Amino acid sequence: MPSTAQAVTTAHEHSSALSNGNTEITAHPSAPTPSSASKRRHSKYRHVAAYHANLRHSSLSRDAAVTPSFLGFRNLMVLVLVAMNLRLIIENSMKYGVLICIKCHDYRKQDVVLGSILFALVPCHLFLAYAIELSAASAAKQTVGQQKRTAEEKERDQQAFRSTWRYTALLHTLNATICLALTSFVVYFLIHHPGIGTLCELHAIIVWLKNCSYAFTNRDLRLAFLNPSADPDLPEIYEACPYPRNVTLGNLAYFWMAPTLVYQPVYPRTASIRWSFVAKRLAEFVGLAMVIWLLSAQYATPVLRNSIDKIAVMDIASILERVMKLSTISLIIWLAGFFALFQALLNALAEVMRFGDREFYTDWWNSSSLGAYWRSWNRPVYLFMKRHVYSPLVGRGWSPFAASMMVFTLSAVLHEMLVGIPTHNFIGVAFFGMMFQLPLITLTTPLEKMRGPHGKTIGNCIFWVSFCLVGQPLGALLYFFAWQAKYGSVSRMSV
Amino acid sequence: MPSTAQAVTTAHEHSSALSNGNTEITAHPSAPTPSSASKRRHSKYRHVAAYHANLRHSSLSRDAAVTPSFLGFRNLMVLVLVAMNLRLIIENSMKYGVLICIKCHDYRKQDVVLGSILFALVPCHLFLAYAIELSAASAAKQTVGQQKRTAEEKERDQQAFRSTWRYTALLHTLNATICLALTSFVVYFLIHHPGIGTLCELHAIIVWLKNCSYAFTNRDLRLAFLNPSADPDLPEIYEACPYPRNVTLGNLAYFWMAPTLVYQPVYPRTASIRWSFVAKRLAEFVGLAMVIWLLSAQYATPVLRNSIDKIAVMDIASILERVMKLSTISLIIWLAGFFALFQALLNALAEVMRFGDREFYTDWWNSSSLGAYWRSWNRPVYLFMKRHVYSPLVGRGWSPFAASMMVFTLSAVLHEMLVGIPTHNFIGVAFFGMMFQLPLITLTTPLEKMRGPHGKTIGNCIFWVSFCLVGQPLGALLYFFAWQAKYGSVSRMSV
Repeated sequence: MPSTAQAVTTAHEHSSALSNGNTEITAHPSAPTPSSASKRRHSKYRHVAAYHANLRHSSLSRDAAVTPSFLGFRNLMVLVLVAMNLRLIIENSMKYGVLICIKCHDYRKQDVVLGSILFALVPCHLFLAYAIELSAASAAKQTVGQQKRTAEEKERDQQAFRSTWRYTALLHTLNATICLALTSFVVYFLIHHPGIGTLCELHAIIVWLKNCSYAFTNRDLRLAFLNPSADPDLPEIYEACPYPRNVTLGNLAYFWMAPTLVYQPVYPRTASIRWSFVAKRLAEFVGLAMVIWLLSAQYATPVLRNSIDKIAVMDIASILERVMKLSTISLIIWLAGFFALFQALLNALAEVMRFGDREFYTDWWNSSSLGAYWRSWNRPVYLFMKRHVYSPLVGRGWSPFAASMMVFTLSAVLHEMLVGIPTHNFIGVAFFGMMFQLPLITLTTPLEKMRGPHGKTIGNCIFWVSFCLVGQPLGALLYFFAWQAKYGSVSRMSV
Repeated sequence: MPSTAQAVTTAHEHSSALSNGNTEITAHPSAPTPSSASKRRHSKYRHVAAYHANLRHSSLSRDAAVTPSFLGFRNLMVLVLVAMNLRLIIENSMKYGVLICIKCHDYRKQDVVLGSILFALVPCHLFLAYAIELSAASAAKQTVGQQKRTAEEKERDQQAFRSTWRYTALLHTLNATICLALTSFVVYFLIHHPGIGTLCELHAIIVWLKNCSYAFTNRDLRLAFLNPSADPDLPEIYEACPYPRNVTLGNLAYFWMAPTLVYQPVYPRTASIRWSFVAKRLAEFVGLAMVIWLLSAQYATPVLRNSIDKIAVMDIASILERVMKLSTISLIIWLAGFFALFQALLNALAEVMRFGDREFYTDWWNSSSLGAYWRSWNRPVYLFMKRHVYSPLVGRGWSPFAASMMVFTLSAVLHEMLVGIPTHNFIGVAFFGMMFQLPLITLTTPLEKMRGPHGKTIGNCIFWVSFCLVGQPLGALLYFFAWQAKYGSVSRMSV
């Protein structure tokens, strides 16, 4: 083709604001060529271009050389999800109207009073923990003061250390366990409101875990203090506050408030508090908490209420349908809750405490095995379990499987306490849900280690389905059903 | 840390079949070091590791150095879509039971007989088109036989060509239009069944377009034949069959059956027919056709029936809810229909015809503007419009916008004929739906040309929403409503 024709084609393309422009530069034999310029009174265009000039495959055929991109279908998925959920919102509002009602929400005054007392009791227990450590530390200081270096004296030191540890361990166990047991008793028998109960129980469990970490860590710091030559490998960061200088009330109070369950005498700290950062995180937290409340009231509650009859008669298809209907909303609530707690609240807390290590989670959403998920979604608990349960057991010669078993059993007990006590129903769903993680982990670990993306994708899908699409809504349904069976009604909603 | 400790850590990792293993190599100061090996009767592990040793950001914080991958959320989206639709399937089956009923489907014998007659009439019209071209070709051959080379004689040749073209054009127009008009009349007034009607009407429109292309192309081939020096630029591929040798019944019959609307004397051809390929494509077509039928009967029909009352009273929220409910199923039917026709059927046909150019579509799903979509989803029609409407008009000096306007007007008329005639309702929705593409194209073209991926993503979303999530289900709803208003019931389904 002469260059004139191409120029014309290009001109069309540039001026074409609309679709059917000549974006494909196919042959235009009719464009004015020098030889035909004299015949301009005929139509310049000729309908003869060979649009079909080459062998070509359909792009979806296997014969096609390149697989086309499917990015458009990803956009379509997002849109279909939005459309489907918008439709459910309209359907919900046509069926139920507005279910959100601030005044309808009732709680007993007794619940609030008891909850406040429980919260106030916690610092007392922490003070006791401090007192226990202080006396153990002063005993250790005495031993070190009398520094004698014969083998016999060293042996006596060791015996003294062990008998001190026996007492401290007993006292710490009593102190921490009384705190947890008292809270659990009060929440189970005396606090009706599940929300207030959950807050108290969660705080008690956190303090119990912190207490354990405080006791174990101080014991081993004391041991290193007594035998500086035998254990030279204390982390460098601790040098800023060597044992027993860390045993102060301020240090313990910092650990109480810090967003971690692992006690260290010293933590990495930021230089200053960015109050605007704190404000933004708190705004996120409050906003998301409201969203969660609205979603629960408007969308989760009707589904839960409508499922009661179906669970009662064990209509499997209907229960399945209810679990699926609940799964989307519980997933959204779960994701919002994760972000509100682990991103917004813990970051705000860390900023206020100038706590430097903000890795409260890693990218758990990409987990290609259940194991990877449990390692990454809740780092504070994971690090506690690793430092104070898993690694010590493996160090004592337990197999990694047995140690993991122990970790998940402990975690299962704590989960059942956290859900069962405030809802006044130990139905064991949270316990067995956690224990069920072990076979799921065994199942998905090989997928994670497969080469290529397929194994990882399958593992990730198993994680999402087992955890978010089935496990959580099913658990919520069962605890709701148990509550309903025991009390008849969650709250006096007029529907 | 000494290397022994690392070796122990690595051993843990390898033997760890479960999750909470030491996959993170953090400090393990308690692993047996040579100096502490003598004190093995104490627990070897020490609870002192500094898990919080560095300043780190949460991965979702803006402060984080790298944005984490969100691949897991893509998997989640797919799973939620599957779960939501599975739930709708269960809900549908609980509400309606099985709606699929082969015997219930009734059609009148008259429809089948008339449809067959219409199909049989088409070859007669094609024979007429051939006869018209044959006489024009013989006239041209005569002129060329008398080859005289004075300017006056050339001028007379041109006049003869133009008067021949006037007659051929008139005859072709009469022939093609009678064929289309007759079919439209019979389908509109005499064939009740919309499926049979659509098949007849679609065939008639295709043949009309092919007729136009045949007439235009042969005219310009004839012109080139008469003035070989003036138009030397006929595509090379045509040399295998120069005008007037292409004017044969076999050549026209091939064009009739070939999967293209653009006439060329010669097409790229494959060497042989792979019958296994044909069988696979036909199996795909039959399978998808059955899927589409099942989906329509079980899922689309109830939604359509339930929307009648709401359209009648113009309840906007309910109509919106119905369109959204319909959009998913209409989208699936649309995608299945696209694949069945453009990938399966046209590829099977092309293979049987040894037609080489299989580019019946390009990756329209990634279209970032409506213009790109209309250029890529239906290449046969696009190429026809470009070769025989858009390019000639632009060649005559029309602006690209005006030419596009013409293309879409023609297309709108054909769309309305294709939908309105078999459903016996010219309600203009298809027509205005097509005309509405012009403003949408104008709107989305700037997005397509934006730098970076965001403009393209927005354009792609506008395409999906306007076309698949709103346009199609709304159109289906309105034609169904019109049908219902006219005939009362689609078919005698017992619900």
